[in-house]
Amino acid sequence: MKKKISTPIANRLINSGPVVLVTTSWQGKANIITIAWQTPVSHTPMLVAISVGKTRYSHELLEKSKEFVINIPAVDLLKETAFCGSVSGRKVDKFKESGLTPIKADKVNAPLIKECIGHLECKLVEIVPCGDHTILVGEVVTAWADEELFDGYWIVDKAKLIHHLGGTKYTTPDKRISP
Amino acid sequence: MKKKISTPIANRLINSGPVVLVTTSWQGKANIITIAWQTPVSHTPMLVAISVGKTRYSHELLEKSKEFVINIPAVDLLKETAFCGSVSGRKVDKFKESGLTPIKADKVNAPLIKECIGHLECKLVEIVPCGDHTILVGEVVTAWADEELFDGYWIVDKAKLIHHLGGTKYTTPDKRISP
Repeated sequence: MKKKISTPIANRLINSGPVVLVTTSWQGKANIITIAWQTPVSHTPMLVAISVGKTRYSHELLEKSKEFVINIPAVDLLKETAFCGSVSGRKVDKFKESGLTPIKADKVNAPLIKECIGHLECKLVEIVPCGDHTILVGEVVTAWADEELFDGYWIVDKAKLIHHLGGTKYTTPDKRISP
Repeated sequence: MKKKISTPIANRLINSGPVVLVTTSWQGKANIITIAWQTPVSHTPMLVAISVGKTRYSHELLEKSKEFVINIPAVDLLKETAFCGSVSGRKVDKFKESGLTPIKADKVNAPLIKECIGHLECKLVEIVPCGDHTILVGEVVTAWADEELFDGYWIVDKAKLIHHLGGTKYTTPDKRISP
């Protein structure tokens, strides 16, 4: 079961830098893009940034719809995560081809991906062209996490987030540690 | 030994989202700030973004010096990493108090931290106010990695990067995986 996460700690869903699946929707067409280049950027308001290639289909959908969802996959979705980063939504229906399931979000039109362990529903608030990509800043309006995997922080022994080292190489977290 | 990493793959030093130690220097005074909120943002040119609280001392030094170094610590520096995120450089000489060693960088005045396993030397190219933080975008001008820990990607079995889950909770990577 997913529980709502209060906005002040919503950054913790992506604070450790995992790869995420960003969903968009425009005129009834939904898409998924795999993004390793993401980070929280502000606490109050709770803002997050994703960097998206200027030529990507999701870039167009983001500019038009001004909404997105950051979905957090665990390692059981590694193949789907790599797939959604390797093909264009202009040519392929990524939900259909990947087998991932779109479900209705609370406050945005972009769908949640049911199989993911957490979600940040975002309204686009800033577009910053930056080299060959664009930094898109979203305000988090609703956040969700699997209640068995998040106790205020990801329980990384069980919540095996995916981190992208580059190319086809990834890793997952080991256990929680403190200084 | 550190080897130079070619710019087109320099993003891989921080691609998996580790916490980093950002150094600055202005008028002979160097500082360190711990940053979990970082991401690459462009391949060509190679740009990286860090998000820094507006009131932080490093924010002032970054605006003045327009240069910084992203230093990548491994888990043996977990205590130092937490320390540098918990005190202000306005009151404390963080190099002295942490025991970390500043060494000369190749192309910027900000120092490298000798004990870190990788470094991205950056020239500030954009400042984007964003909520209670500022996104600072830097162009990577030189990159370095420990040659025994990086073979084009971090060898995460040995290169135990630190990932910040939030609060006092961190994790390290497990092994490399591919889809």
